[in-house]
Amino acid sequence: MFEIHRQKDAYRQGMLTTRAGVIRTPVFMPIATKASVKHIPPEELRTLGVQIVLGNTYHLWLRPGSDLIARAGDLHMFMHWSGPILTDSGGFQVFSLGARAHTRFGKNGVKLTEEGVEFIDPLNGKKHFLSPEKSIEVQLELGSDIIMVLDECPPYPSTHAYVAQSLALTTRWAKRCKDYFERRMAEREADAQISGTDHTRPLLFAIVQGGVYEDLRQESARQLVALGFDGYAIGGVAVGEPRETMKDILAWTVPILPEDKPRYLMGLGKPEEIVRAVEAGVDMFDCVIPTREGRHGRLFIWKDQKDLSGDFYETLNINNEKYREDFTSIDAQCDCYTCTNYTRAYLRHLFSVDEPFGFHLASTHNLRFYLKLAESLRGE
Amino acid sequence: MFEIHRQKDAYRQGMLTTRAGVIRTPVFMPIATKASVKHIPPEELRTLGVQIVLGNTYHLWLRPGSDLIARAGDLHMFMHWSGPILTDSGGFQVFSLGARAHTRFGKNGVKLTEEGVEFIDPLNGKKHFLSPEKSIEVQLELGSDIIMVLDECPPYPSTHAYVAQSLALTTRWAKRCKDYFERRMAEREADAQISGTDHTRPLLFAIVQGGVYEDLRQESARQLVALGFDGYAIGGVAVGEPRETMKDILAWTVPILPEDKPRYLMGLGKPEEIVRAVEAGVDMFDCVIPTREGRHGRLFIWKDQKDLSGDFYETLNINNEKYREDFTSIDAQCDCYTCTNYTRAYLRHLFSVDEPFGFHLASTHNLRFYLKLAESLRGE
Repeated sequence: MFEIHRQKDAYRQGMLTTRAGVIRTPVFMPIATKASVKHIPPEELRTLGVQIVLGNTYHLWLRPGSDLIARAGDLHMFMHWSGPILTDSGGFQVFSLGARAHTRFGKNGVKLTEEGVEFIDPLNGKKHFLSPEKSIEVQLELGSDIIMVLDECPPYPSTHAYVAQSLALTTRWAKRCKDYFERRMAEREADAQISGTDHTRPLLFAIVQGGVYEDLRQESARQLVALGFDGYAIGGVAVGEPRETMKDILAWTVPILPEDKPRYLMGLGKPEEIVRAVEAGVDMFDCVIPTREGRHGRLFIWKDQKDLSGDFYETLNINNEKYREDFTSIDAQCDCYTCTNYTRAYLRHLFSVDEPFGFHLASTHNLRFYLKLAESLRGE
Repeated sequence: MFEIHRQKDAYRQGMLTTRAGVIRTPVFMPIATKASVKHIPPEELRTLGVQIVLGNTYHLWLRPGSDLIARAGDLHMFMHWSGPILTDSGGFQVFSLGARAHTRFGKNGVKLTEEGVEFIDPLNGKKHFLSPEKSIEVQLELGSDIIMVLDECPPYPSTHAYVAQSLALTTRWAKRCKDYFERRMAEREADAQISGTDHTRPLLFAIVQGGVYEDLRQESARQLVALGFDGYAIGGVAVGEPRETMKDILAWTVPILPEDKPRYLMGLGKPEEIVRAVEAGVDMFDCVIPTREGRHGRLFIWKDQKDLSGDFYETLNINNEKYREDFTSIDAQCDCYTCTNYTRAYLRHLFSVDEPFGFHLASTHNLRFYLKLAESLRGE
């Protein structure tokens, strides 16, 4: 269930009910690629204001294996995170990592057919096959609360003809995902009835593709809406196209999506991109930027927490010599553990001698920046 | 002040008062080499039962500089640890790291004179000079609560003649350290009187040398005891000599040390070595083993927390394939965060995909093992 509480002079705000808890939107979802948000204990995620984390199906399926995680209970129990988890379909990594793995294996290093996609694990050379049904099954094994359909992510640039053909496949796969999901839910509900237990469904989200073409984005959105999903993601952005194109893609796509379903912009983005996307009606975001940039010592600093329309933040590279004797906090406006207890001089020292606690402190601050940004967008 | 509460049928137990707090002994001190116990936030150290941490003067003097740390307040404020801190003299690292740096520069890569020791920073080739007075001054800048005198650490093996000459130098240096320390304390106390503030002294510990020679260990201990210090360390162990020699070194040395002063065995050791040293009358320990072994996935597992005389623990290498689907806790007898919340299968997964949270969880458990060992030795 998704309830919108749009406020006058405010961004679209809502409450998304999942079986693992209610999520206030707009929401930023940190990435726990391999069953851990790098450097950050789950208890600290809670303190930072994290409502939901994203797990990567591709990585977890291959290592340690979704079957193993299922035997541990589910991904929540495995990684000690009881809050909601969204999992991607694995498709994005197959297409992006597969391409790097083995270029002779086929187009982009992956063998794409109507049935699914065959790819080689870059780490050990093993072949794997991912189909719409397999992706859903893996996500069910992981115990995901928000499951994504398998889509094809065409590279940028791709011709109109290629993207048209690709989005048609993505729609057929979305239907297969939904059919398989419904069948498995019916089975589980029947099992639950027999055993007298409860079964609560995860949510199933579709992914709009269509590249940088207005007609194709709209066609993709219309086809998926006709099939009916619990939420709609906008995929295939930030794959190399000019970043300004995002505004157009949202303007073409969002009006077609149902008002009463959450909208999720996959893999984005910079703080100002998130603000613009919320203005365009997007509710959910995930991005590696805060943690990855943090590990490189690049920190987000607030200029204005109240007015997100303008130049509301700046970045700071803690490796810079000028912070050597800077005994002020990382960000005077931030309430995080790092800013409350440590100085720029200390953090710079940790980075300069490769102390791992530095990566922890920097990730903590950047995550808090993104979470505070989402809180501001929710009017909290 | 050091009060002994020796109990019948128990190990020597005491309370050491420092200006930053009282320490119950036997005590294990985790190492915060570069102003951080690798991977572990200070609040977590408290939870684990850490009473005091060790900072390395050599590392902190060179990077970020003890002057910079003094401007931050002191090492407590810089690294956000308000509990007691012991700092070493820097000598051990000069002799061990210096030797690796530049073998043509002089004996062992360092130039040793009566005045002090000149060495080359292996990271940038810069020359530095460490004297007894400089070592004390650097430790005062760091704001250490337990300061160690500068000693010469002869390599193993060294001849009787060399060690005899070396320990005489160590004694002369210890006297210079004490004289300089007393002069600086008098200055500070005078300043405090003028400004109407309080000055509380750190403690000053000497270091017994003498290699593997009974007469020289005893001579060193007698000379240092005659000078009078707040505590006595036993140095120059675990430098390559047979590990069984430790028992002899303690048997020769400890009886000469005053009953009412704490005894600190530097840089040791394995759990059973700590137990044997406590039996021999040692009160304080520091060692990289729990954190370093933890980062390699080698974990300490209790067999018997009650009886430390026998085979009371074993080790486990979490990288082993056999833990792949082991959904039990790391150590069923352990009360740490890791053992309470995570499985061996999860920890093994984190190590197998190089997730940094794995190093955090493993270090946490191993530190708790060592701290629990100290608690058991204290009869807690």
